[in-house]
Amino acid sequence: MAGWIRIIGLGPGSDGLLTPDALRWLELATDVVGYHPYVSRVPARPGLSLHPSDNREELVRARHALSMAQAGRYVAVVSGGDAGVFGMASAVFEAVESGDPAWAGLDIEVVPGISACLAAAARAGAPLGHDFCVLSLSDNLKPWDLLLHRLRAAAEAGFAMALYNPVSAARPWQLDEAFDVLRALLPGEVPVIFARAVTRPDEKLLVCPLREAKAALADMRTLVLICTEATRLIAKSSDECWVYAPRSVTRS
Amino acid sequence: MAGWIRIIGLGPGSDGLLTPDALRWLELATDVVGYHPYVSRVPARPGLSLHPSDNREELVRARHALSMAQAGRYVAVVSGGDAGVFGMASAVFEAVESGDPAWAGLDIEVVPGISACLAAAARAGAPLGHDFCVLSLSDNLKPWDLLLHRLRAAAEAGFAMALYNPVSAARPWQLDEAFDVLRALLPGEVPVIFARAVTRPDEKLLVCPLREAKAALADMRTLVLICTEATRLIAKSSDECWVYAPRSVTRS
Repeated sequence: MAGWIRIIGLGPGSDGLLTPDALRWLELATDVVGYHPYVSRVPARPGLSLHPSDNREELVRARHALSMAQAGRYVAVVSGGDAGVFGMASAVFEAVESGDPAWAGLDIEVVPGISACLAAAARAGAPLGHDFCVLSLSDNLKPWDLLLHRLRAAAEAGFAMALYNPVSAARPWQLDEAFDVLRALLPGEVPVIFARAVTRPDEKLLVCPLREAKAALADMRTLVLICTEATRLIAKSSDECWVYAPRSVTRS
Repeated sequence: MAGWIRIIGLGPGSDGLLTPDALRWLELATDVVGYHPYVSRVPARPGLSLHPSDNREELVRARHALSMAQAGRYVAVVSGGDAGVFGMASAVFEAVESGDPAWAGLDIEVVPGISACLAAAARAGAPLGHDFCVLSLSDNLKPWDLLLHRLRAAAEAGFAMALYNPVSAARPWQLDEAFDVLRALLPGEVPVIFARAVTRPDEKLLVCPLREAKAALADMRTLVLICTEATRLIAKSSDECWVYAPRSVTRS
């Protein structure tokens, strides 16, 4: 008797943004699989086995989850934010396609979550209120020149951008190179938002013009939003502002 | 004594994807403002005034909400999905910037929601599992040639795309023109997902190759996802498949 897999987005961190669907499946699960900071968000209870693992072990983790479901376990595969946005969903389907043919017949569902870009944008105002792109800056899984090509295409076409995985210990120089590429195409006044650990106790939001943006302002828990020439700032207090994209766009 | 405004994303429709934060603010509100299909999702209760309004009245609605908050009311401004993604958030900040200067000092928060693209992608598998763009096809607020320019840029750079507002009674021809533009740049096998009313009782998901995509398959409640050359399909039963973007991308 086969079990199931639910690939669950836990949202940005606060319980107030964890959906009832996600919570319900976590309560029914026998096993939770995922990167350890996300697994540690799931409360322990009798009968629930937690299987935290390290970063960059997505396929191993996915195969483990599929094997357990095949053996009758009820497996929650968890990601921060939304599992379909640079989370575990693609890894599970890759494992299905390359693994035991019976895995394609397993009971699998993806449960969406509040992705970091939506939570960060909400905190800042509405910087993604018009057409936008979502990119991962990690070059573990794609060539760096392809990422730069996409940044240029997005800037030239007037998209706002949400940059996931902006820095890591192994590639501290990439975000600065990305800012340089964008500065060659966009005015220096374009707002850049560094949104760190949104909805967590150590949340920090910083808005600066593109000309002053630098990688040192980001860490692994930061999402970077690049706005557009049309983006507006409204002062709400002496040192804080709302950032929003007007709904109307005229060709620049 | 001023009240507050909470700009709330209600998610795609099911209660299971309405966040606890959204629910809490709806319970504290004295007034709910929004497009009538979204306002009708909020349960009536004594002391709660519902202010449904028509489409394309976003700025009027936003000013009404701000006036009420200024007068001490607790106002929930509601959108489907996420209010920051083609929802009411930008309209409220536009109204703040162009209205009574005191409005900038009001207690305003944006409460994120599960946007339609995340819910639709979850149902289909993980088609947004790599870099992607989010675009509105409506030309009420931007020139149509700018939209076509963005579609071309996104296709050439290898982004998957989520198309909001794909059709309306006033512009039935646009989505077919968009498909024609994409067919000139992408292989005919690229999967296109028509995700209608995801998580609602009348949900319908259709996957077809780009060469067969046509506007007649969409209506006002459909989100259209354009995949990429790298996208994979896995048959899960005789007539259903998972659609996912592999995590690794090599330059094509």
